[in-house]
Amino acid sequence: MKQYNTIIILGSTGSIGTQALEVIRDHPNRFKVSVLSALKNAELLIQQAIEFKPEMVVIGDESKYLEVKNALALYNIKVLAGEEALSEAAVYPKGNIVLTAIMGSVGLKPTIAAIKAGKDIALANKETLVVAGEYITALAKEYQVKILPVDSEHSAIFQCLVGEEQNEIEKIYLTASGGPFLGKDKNFLSSVKKEQALKHPNWVMGAKITIDSASLMNKGLEVIEAKWLFNLDVNQIDVIVHPQSIVHSLVQFTDGSMKAQMGVPDMKLPIQYALNHPDRLKNNFKRFNFLDYPTFTFQQADSKTFRNLELAFSSLKKGGNMPCILNAANEIVVEAFLQDKVGFLQMSDVIECCMDEISFIEKPELNDYLETDKHSRILAAELVTKSIF
Amino acid sequence: MKQYNTIIILGSTGSIGTQALEVIRDHPNRFKVSVLSALKNAELLIQQAIEFKPEMVVIGDESKYLEVKNALALYNIKVLAGEEALSEAAVYPKGNIVLTAIMGSVGLKPTIAAIKAGKDIALANKETLVVAGEYITALAKEYQVKILPVDSEHSAIFQCLVGEEQNEIEKIYLTASGGPFLGKDKNFLSSVKKEQALKHPNWVMGAKITIDSASLMNKGLEVIEAKWLFNLDVNQIDVIVHPQSIVHSLVQFTDGSMKAQMGVPDMKLPIQYALNHPDRLKNNFKRFNFLDYPTFTFQQADSKTFRNLELAFSSLKKGGNMPCILNAANEIVVEAFLQDKVGFLQMSDVIECCMDEISFIEKPELNDYLETDKHSRILAAELVTKSIF
Repeated sequence: MKQYNTIIILGSTGSIGTQALEVIRDHPNRFKVSVLSALKNAELLIQQAIEFKPEMVVIGDESKYLEVKNALALYNIKVLAGEEALSEAAVYPKGNIVLTAIMGSVGLKPTIAAIKAGKDIALANKETLVVAGEYITALAKEYQVKILPVDSEHSAIFQCLVGEEQNEIEKIYLTASGGPFLGKDKNFLSSVKKEQALKHPNWVMGAKITIDSASLMNKGLEVIEAKWLFNLDVNQIDVIVHPQSIVHSLVQFTDGSMKAQMGVPDMKLPIQYALNHPDRLKNNFKRFNFLDYPTFTFQQADSKTFRNLELAFSSLKKGGNMPCILNAANEIVVEAFLQDKVGFLQMSDVIECCMDEISFIEKPELNDYLETDKHSRILAAELVTKSIF
Repeated sequence: MKQYNTIIILGSTGSIGTQALEVIRDHPNRFKVSVLSALKNAELLIQQAIEFKPEMVVIGDESKYLEVKNALALYNIKVLAGEEALSEAAVYPKGNIVLTAIMGSVGLKPTIAAIKAGKDIALANKETLVVAGEYITALAKEYQVKILPVDSEHSAIFQCLVGEEQNEIEKIYLTASGGPFLGKDKNFLSSVKKEQALKHPNWVMGAKITIDSASLMNKGLEVIEAKWLFNLDVNQIDVIVHPQSIVHSLVQFTDGSMKAQMGVPDMKLPIQYALNHPDRLKNNFKRFNFLDYPTFTFQQADSKTFRNLELAFSSLKKGGNMPCILNAANEIVVEAFLQDKVGFLQMSDVIECCMDEISFIEKPELNDYLETDKHSRILAAELVTKSIF
């Protein structure tokens, strides 16, 4: 029988983390949890630790260290706290796959540490590749570790590529639901509030990614992620809006044949696939039924109205630290939007301004990314403060 | 560089045969033709022989032997005639793939001969597996030859299964265009003529398969073919009508994930894939564009009106020589329909009557299939003669 995988989860209390634990719970013979970590939600982290019996837990918020430590006093579980401890979690010796389910560019450092420790990465933190895709993919190659995509679109492409290693990709289509504002114009968007943006029609996800879906930035980040994951040119990547979210993405090969991966929207499937690749595991996830979805529709993405998508493509064309600037500015404006501090359309204005203003570096080193990330955040925050909203 | 494949084509002047030669013409470094054979079309066979320089040609119709022989006198090409010579063509030593592009159960014997000679089979003659699927698949296993499907639906499944060898199939969906009579009722169908049935909305194919598409028998035969190609239970196979013919078929794995192969309808793609599997070849086939097909629709097949599909499923459930009876009777009634000797709906009546009347054999030997085929044809022909039309 195949040896089980030991999983280190960075971000176990978020949407991806909790769904990953559901998958792990259903397959006790295939997976063991060795480390759980969370930023702030001590209560849920404690519950998870008691159920899954990891060897170590990490709570990012140091003020909650004692709460976690005391709650787990009766168990043989090592407890650490603080952001630095995340990287310690990522290299914990027992653990062959690290699921990076933390949000934002803070995922970069522990991912690098995990790769250097020879661990495969189940990548749910797309910012890692957006910020430093060239660096990360080269590092993964050097250390011979796999990067296993968890995003449903990239998992779709990844699933379509098994057994096709010798065949060239002509192009890929990333599908986009279009989000809650599909078909809306700028006039409508100028006054939308976070409550409207948080209502995603198909996927249940965290707040940040839900806003990114509404603004099409999520798709833009996915384009950048796909470039690095599948070693493509920017002109080999297309986005197609498919409001039903059944076709999760498609590959077109150089013979013209296309392969698509499909199913009802459920993040547990790509999570399970990443954690057990290339073997599939029987499960009781809801099955797709054509009679529930007799019609699939497809349309071009409106990147004139939803400018984030265009900004993401242009950052990728420019290359260097430009996607890093885009991502950092976006993290700031989304946070601001969630606090009613910036308007929906202004988010793109702030990002574009950062892309214009921050120094361009054509061939950044790791440290350049970290500096760019910092400067872009500072500038974006300033611009948000100045914005008239 | 990879060694080129040498191809023996059984049925080079038909729809699949001529398209295969187009593929071969475009890739002179990947394919060489060693044998060409045709039933009656001596003129085209001669042209093809002069262009592709096979070592042997076979003309089925013995009365045309001298015409072919004389036309090719100046070339170093061996010329044979007669049905028995087909089996000689199938085992010609130079040739590692046999493309079985002849129509009907007459394809069975040369396919068996080719398998026993250790040649891979590019299977365009679905009747081979319909009539004797259990025998043929066991034989292919024994002689360690590959059966490479050419039908677009089976090629789709086959393409979706590469790299998934270790994973279990939960079910497959064969897509059906629905043919020219999609949505029509029995009243309408009772008076349709061959001219209407021959107008297929999406695919350009031979007359027999076009009638089979209109009557849904083609999909029924494909269900039986799929059972044997992919080693499935009948309840793992479903048919879904998809009038745009873009999604060529789908596989659902036991984790609920589905993979589909897609593209504009063009038989050259599955032919090329079969002849060069598992490597894809760059080509200039028309590419799919979502803007040309913004909507895909799916609906249940109407097997109450198009009874052939139900008959095919029930022949497969019964097993033994039942699919052989179905197929033989169908070949007779389609020929009769093309000669205005039987009505569209009566075709199913004749087939059903044959399935009721011909002796059922649960575990047929090869000879039983040949006898069943003969008896079913005789009975079907009798029933056609008696039919009031």
